[in-house]
Amino acid sequence: MCTAVSYKTKCHYFGRNLDLERGYNESVVITPRNYELKYRYEKSQKLHYALIGMATIVNDYPLYFEATNEKGLSMAGLNFPNNAHYYEYQNNMENVAPFELIPYVLAQCASVQDVKELLQSINIVHCNFSDGLPVSPLHWIIADGDSSITLECIKEGMRVYDNPFGVLTNNPTFDYHMMHMNNYMHLHEGFSKNQLQASLPLFNYSLGMGAMGLPGDFSSSSRFVKAVFVKEKSYCKGDEKESVNQFFHILQAVAMPKGCVLAHNGDYEYTRYSSCCNTDTQVYYFTTYENMCVRSVDMHSIGLNDSKLSSYPID
Amino acid sequence: MCTAVSYKTKCHYFGRNLDLERGYNESVVITPRNYELKYRYEKSQKLHYALIGMATIVNDYPLYFEATNEKGLSMAGLNFPNNAHYYEYQNNMENVAPFELIPYVLAQCASVQDVKELLQSINIVHCNFSDGLPVSPLHWIIADGDSSITLECIKEGMRVYDNPFGVLTNNPTFDYHMMHMNNYMHLHEGFSKNQLQASLPLFNYSLGMGAMGLPGDFSSSSRFVKAVFVKEKSYCKGDEKESVNQFFHILQAVAMPKGCVLAHNGDYEYTRYSSCCNTDTQVYYFTTYENMCVRSVDMHSIGLNDSKLSSYPID
Amino acid sequence: MCTAVSYKTKCHYFGRNLDLERGYNESVVITPRNYELKYRYEKSQKLHYALIGMATIVNDYPLYFEATNEKGLSMAGLNFPNNAHYYEYQNNMENVAPFELIPYVLAQCASVQDVKELLQSINIVHCNFSDGLPVSPLHWIIADGDSSITLECIKEGMRVYDNPFGVLTNNPTFDYHMMHMNNYMHLHEGFSKNQLQASLPLFNYSLGMGAMGLPGDFSSSSRFVKAVFVKEKSYCKGDEKESVNQFFHILQAVAMPKGCVLAHNGDYEYTRYSSCCNTDTQVYYFTTYENMCVRSVDMHSIGLNDSKLSSYPID
Amino acid sequence: MCTAVSYKTKCHYFGRNLDLERGYNESVVITPRNYELKYRYEKSQKLHYALIGMATIVNDYPLYFEATNEKGLSMAGLNFPNNAHYYEYQNNMENVAPFELIPYVLAQCASVQDVKELLQSINIVHCNFSDGLPVSPLHWIIADGDSSITLECIKEGMRVYDNPFGVLTNNPTFDYHMMHMNNYMHLHEGFSKNQLQASLPLFNYSLGMGAMGLPGDFSSSSRFVKAVFVKEKSYCKGDEKESVNQFFHILQAVAMPKGCVLAHNGDYEYTRYSSCCNTDTQVYYFTTYENMCVRSVDMHSIGLNDSKLSSYPID
Repeated sequence: MCTAVSYKTKCHYFGRNLDLERGYNESVVITPRNYELKYRYEKSQKLHYALIGMATIVNDYPLYFEATNEKGLSMAGLNFPNNAHYYEYQNNMENVAPFELIPYVLAQCASVQDVKELLQSINIVHCNFSDGLPVSPLHWIIADGDSSITLECIKEGMRVYDNPFGVLTNNPTFDYHMMHMNNYMHLHEGFSKNQLQASLPLFNYSLGMGAMGLPGDFSSSSRFVKAVFVKEKSYCKGDEKESVNQFFHILQAVAMPKGCVLAHNGDYEYTRYSSCCNTDTQVYYFTTYENMCVRSVDMHSIGLNDSKLSSYPID
Repeated sequence: MCTAVSYKTKCHYFGRNLDLERGYNESVVITPRNYELKYRYEKSQKLHYALIGMATIVNDYPLYFEATNEKGLSMAGLNFPNNAHYYEYQNNMENVAPFELIPYVLAQCASVQDVKELLQSINIVHCNFSDGLPVSPLHWIIADGDSSITLECIKEGMRVYDNPFGVLTNNPTFDYHMMHMNNYMHLHEGFSKNQLQASLPLFNYSLGMGAMGLPGDFSSSSRFVKAVFVKEKSYCKGDEKESVNQFFHILQAVAMPKGCVLAHNGDYEYTRYSSCCNTDTQVYYFTTYENMCVRSVDMHSIGLNDSKLSSYPID
Repeated sequence: MCTAVSYKTKCHYFGRNLDLERGYNESVVITPRNYELKYRYEKSQKLHYALIGMATIVNDYPLYFEATNEKGLSMAGLNFPNNAHYYEYQNNMENVAPFELIPYVLAQCASVQDVKELLQSINIVHCNFSDGLPVSPLHWIIADGDSSITLECIKEGMRVYDNPFGVLTNNPTFDYHMMHMNNYMHLHEGFSKNQLQASLPLFNYSLGMGAMGLPGDFSSSSRFVKAVFVKEKSYCKGDEKESVNQFFHILQAVAMPKGCVLAHNGDYEYTRYSSCCNTDTQVYYFTTYENMCVRSVDMHSIGLNDSKLSSYPID
Repeated sequence: MCTAVSYKTKCHYFGRNLDLERGYNESVVITPRNYELKYRYEKSQKLHYALIGMATIVNDYPLYFEATNEKGLSMAGLNFPNNAHYYEYQNNMENVAPFELIPYVLAQCASVQDVKELLQSINIVHCNFSDGLPVSPLHWIIADGDSSITLECIKEGMRVYDNPFGVLTNNPTFDYHMMHMNNYMHLHEGFSKNQLQASLPLFNYSLGMGAMGLPGDFSSSSRFVKAVFVKEKSYCKGDEKESVNQFFHILQAVAMPKGCVLAHNGDYEYTRYSSCCNTDTQVYYFTTYENMCVRSVDMHSIGLNDSKLSSYPID
């Protein structure tokens, strides 16, 4: 389970909580322009936009959890179990494996508009990375500084939704979250108003009662609602340090402390890392469960024309 | 468990749901002015106000669940388990058993103000009606056309609360319900307003979304909230037929259908009867679980100066 | 707004609350077998199953809100604003206007299975009844003693859902309600169990706490949840009188008291009538807001081979 | 508004979120044994237990928000507006000003049991620190490794509650929070179980659905519930680094991001700092809103027999 957020102050920020019960040896990975991106069905991209994000490198291939490219376009994959459905190979389409999708898109698109166009010719193929790494059930949020979309492959076909909330969590499908959100539109940061009956002696015994009804459990539908609330009500004058700090506070509000969420295997799922990329400058910030100090990697700290992956351990 | 309501249109109405898993052979009982009310500790009242209400008659004594007197003062006892605490006999006080309290009060008081004064000299004594009928843990709502109070005897002493809601259910103590009610003051009958973020595409997919968050379970705290909401939002132009009908609709909104609430003994608790007394005219209306037709008994249909109880079966 | 319920004890019962801010001169209407059912696009049916249900008769045509046929198949139309979308006339299909759909289906189908098959060849055409009676945005629940389905015509096409809940309310689309219902699966009629921490002094201060979290507002999504809960937990040994009575108690639990729900025109929407048809015997029971006494009309009280509508006023 | 937590793994930890719209120049302050604690009504303590905690120093006096002493006893003051009521000076009592209470208690008590005894002779006097620093409306949580109590001074008198939750927030009075908590006892970290009706196709679409209903707003009553849940479900094997880290994750789950809570003056209230003291070793850890890196001050880093306050800036 995860929560991804797109947030704008003076700059645009994109990041996520990764909620899992175990790690995958993930690290911050920069894919420079000349690293050859090889694909299962499509021909490789030798020159492309550089990317930065969190990834597990397997056989020198960056399996990105989320990433941002040098044009400021970002994309994150989030768990979408039982709903994600990938398709058979199709002629006349660009056939892309789920684990290839983030690099495939970010390598060539500079904006959400570009992505929308590209997606018209893409077919996402059910394809394992390897025997040991079977296909993951995912859906994606793709964002630039102006807008966000959600991409979902379900049995009925591929769906591309405008995502005006700039938030993605997990199940159910995105149309559910959008509809469900209407149940919370009355919530606000201020004092609760007596609309029941003016003559009754009702009062605010606490600050914050205007948000009474905001869910606080860790299910994906509740995290969606809370993340939208906290992000939308978020106050930040907006220089870099404040914005990044505020972004991590938003993510903390929907983070999973260890012990609060049981996974299918009996272990606890918790927020292993939180990330925040300034998509204008491509500086990637992160914290981990064990270390809440904000650390960063600047995409421009390496030569973007390199041909080898650079990776930075997070622990 | 039960819900009592005081409601005013052109006249004043007082009534309740009686929620139990079994009956006590209850009937509508008129206690006329010259029926001698005998008490365990105090001397009997030979001449007093006449009463009408629902009662179980045992040994010619009317054990009222709730009643209204000819002055329009009403009182209902509601279950208050684990909280109700009655006291030792005290000299210099008027010592009244819990089962005597409704007749004792309604026999002599004409208003809530009268009751407040009387209560200052009353001590409610722990006293069984009989071996087979041990003392019931109760608290009371007492109302006239102008105001309501709640009376609770707890370990710390007798408490008399102004009850601006004109509603009583069961546990916890009344101060809890009053505080809890603040959590729901923002609820209303209209459309939900987008206070989260004007730019988000949020909308009312249904009528009634302004009350989103109103509880619908059958616990005493949730019934309190819903009864207050429905009563306060209730619309009634106000002639007798409409008012009585509206009153029963209010009670239906917090009634217990059979099967939804399990009692300690493994049986289902349900709303055995609902009552509504026009306290201005002392016409007592009622419905039962098995028969939702509104039936009525008029206190003035008998000679109020009689000396014998009149009872009217409800089934 | 409305709530429809399919419920089985020894017999099968089908009915609904009709929630509107005004009436349409509705009455209980029996359409006998030889009443000629005329259609806008399809040829008329001269001999067909007899129907009973609530309808407004306009120009001798029965505009049914809901009905049951002599085979025990039932169908109700419920408000579905902004979602209902009807289509253009299509060749090679059976073209049916929304207001014709209940008679068209019930005239010829004996089971839900029959309906599923029939629906494959039906096209629901956007077509006003008259200038004064424009098309209504509706979706439908269709039930027999064994199962229920929901029929929704939306922009994306006609959808037929299995409806294991046997309940229908209004917006959003039915897939939302089914998903949303998962949030309430832990609710029950019994005592709340301490699953937070055994060592904490937590207790049930009231009966009914196992359903804490059940919504009680009047929005369509909350009524759906509450209707499912009350219906599923409903306890009824099952003879006719008890079953019918229990059915009306289920409907009362989601009924709208006047004043609690504001309609777009500023009037209050409320539950104008509640109905319950024993689909095995085709006795149609109903109550109205103004008169909660259960009244009934037996389909077999007339000659089913008649050719004229019979109608029975409800006020 | 604030949240305080007492938490035990291998060691005992005590800390809090301080939620305010502005700072008071607070710093980590060690009060060594020979610093003379002067009081308004009682004679000063020249030799006493050493304390460490967060305080504002005014005129060389440490106004502690919360502190722990060298015996491992801890105490925190939390906002209690409109409820806190302090009393007139009384002969034959130890008269203590609210702002003196933390040092007065921690200077001489080694356990919660000691505090309970001391409190029997204490009278908390309405007394401003100065014209510019009027009395604050507070209540207190006092904890050692074995138990916690809540201390509230209200109009009706001083109340000392056993606090089995080891959590304190703000209004209403503590008895409300204890009762309210019962509404959430069914919540847990696992999968939601279908208790509605086994035959219905209900399922967990997400992890974490067992806690569906946990509140997530920032009111004091909701923070109380969520803090109890997260603390009780918290999983920590228990060495120092993990425990401290886990403690901050618990506090983050109820922290206020800037913008989500409006204060009376129109500014935003937010979690200015979070603290966690290992009460066994008296190492005091803290994070601030602007810097989530965990920093620490060890009480034993100074000579505990000193006579001067030591303070450590937090920014």
